[in-house]
Formats: sequence, C-alpha cells, structure tokens
Amino acid sequence: MEAIAQSFTDYYYTTFDSNRAGLAPLYRANSMLTFEGTQLQGVEAIVEKLSSLPFQKVEHKVSTRDCQPTGDGNSLVVIVTGALMVDDSPAPLNFSQTFVLNPEGGSYYVFNDLFRLNYG
Amino acid sequence: MEAIAQSFTDYYYTTFDSNRAGLAPLYRANSMLTFEGTQLQGVEAIVEKLSSLPFQKVEHKVSTRDCQPTGDGNSLVVIVTGALMVDDSPAPLNFSQTFVLNPEGGSYYVFNDLFRLNYG
Repeated sequence: MEAIAQSFTDYYYTTFDSNRAGLAPLYRANSMLTFEGTQLQGVEAIVEKLSSLPFQKVEHKVSTRDCQPTGDGNSLVVIVTGALMVDDSPAPLNFSQTFVLNPEGGSYYVFNDLFRLNYG
Repeated sequence: MEAIAQSFTDYYYTTFDSNRAGLAPLYRANSMLTFEGTQLQGVEAIVEKLSSLPFQKVEHKVSTRDCQPTGDGNSLVVIVTGALMVDDSPAPLNFSQTFVLNPEGGSYYVFNDLFRLNYG
C-alpha cells in the first residue's frame, strides 16, 4: 500500500511539475478536485484548471506521505504534505493534498483530490 | 454535505480541546488513525494515543475545510487545515487533517483519520 502511494505521488508531482496536461489519464469523468476551495468534476474541467494555474515554473517538494485503505478496502486515501516552489520566488508555500485512489484494471485513478495551501 | 463537514469538525475539535477521551464515540473497531506517521486501529488504541499526547492545553484554530463524497457516494472525505496552539507556546503549529466519515444509523463515524503537522 505504501509502495502504491509512493509511486503514485512520485509520478503525479513529476508530471505536474513538467507537463500538467499529462495528468489527464489519472482522472475519470467522476473524479472530483477541490483546489483552494474551487470545486471541479471530470477530466476536462480538472486538467483545464490545473493547466491554467498562473505560474510558469513549479516544483513540489514532498515532506510526508501517509496512506490507509478506504471505501470497500480496495481504495486508498493518501495525504501528502510538502512545499511548493513557484516561479522564482524564494519563499516555499506549504501545501497539503489528499487523494482517494480507486482501483481500475490493475492500476488506480484519482477519485477525490483536495488541495490546500497551508499558510503560516 | 458542507453542513455535515462543518458540524462534524466543530464537534471534533471542541471535544479534542476540552476532553480528548470524549472522542471515543466517533470511532469504531475498524477505524484507522495515522498520527504523525504512527498507525493505529480501533477505538481503544486511537483514544489512548490522542489522550496521551504530551500537552496540557491545546486549541485548534480551523482555517479551511473542504469535503467531497467518496466511497459508494454515502461517505465523505473532509480535509481541514489550520493552526494548533499548544500549552503556552506563542508559536502556532500548522496542521492538516483528513477524515473519511462513513454513514451509520443517520449519523457518521470516523473510518479514516490522518493527521500531520505542516512545518514551514
């Protein structure tokens, strides 16, 4: 379970930081994203939102990742904390992000995605 | 859905800050807590952990709460960010906490609980 959470989050943030549109295959029509309080559903709306975030360069530095089985026991809830380095700002922004991953054909897709900056 | 998340988190943190043992009715035998990376399961283990945290006074100041339906659509995933004021320390600690609430008899119990401090 920890290995799934690790490989998923590695892949997610590497893709986010290099090619946000490349996240589309991780979402489905029933996927939900709440990004800083804005709620979206479905692949197109989610990828459009992520792609339009107003920064050119972004790097996620993951500090912690925790996971537990959820739903019927075959889904995973994953919580990530870390820092976001945006453009050329020297000040990292703390974030936390929660994913619920549902199984599909031997792999997983993102059913729930909730992102918040955590201001000091 | 937002109303459930609001009333649950209000009740949870008010109880946590006044009488941690009083959180027991919110958990079940299958409930899981990951607290700063330590994994526990079941009412007794969870309440024992929360009750033994080494501070006398604690106050949660909630900044944000977001929620989505999850599982079969009758469960809720709730993500909270905020600050924790501990004992007489003037420096608040940022935290994020994720709950999955499962329905039971017209109410909800905590199935998943994942807590992390979010260091700057």
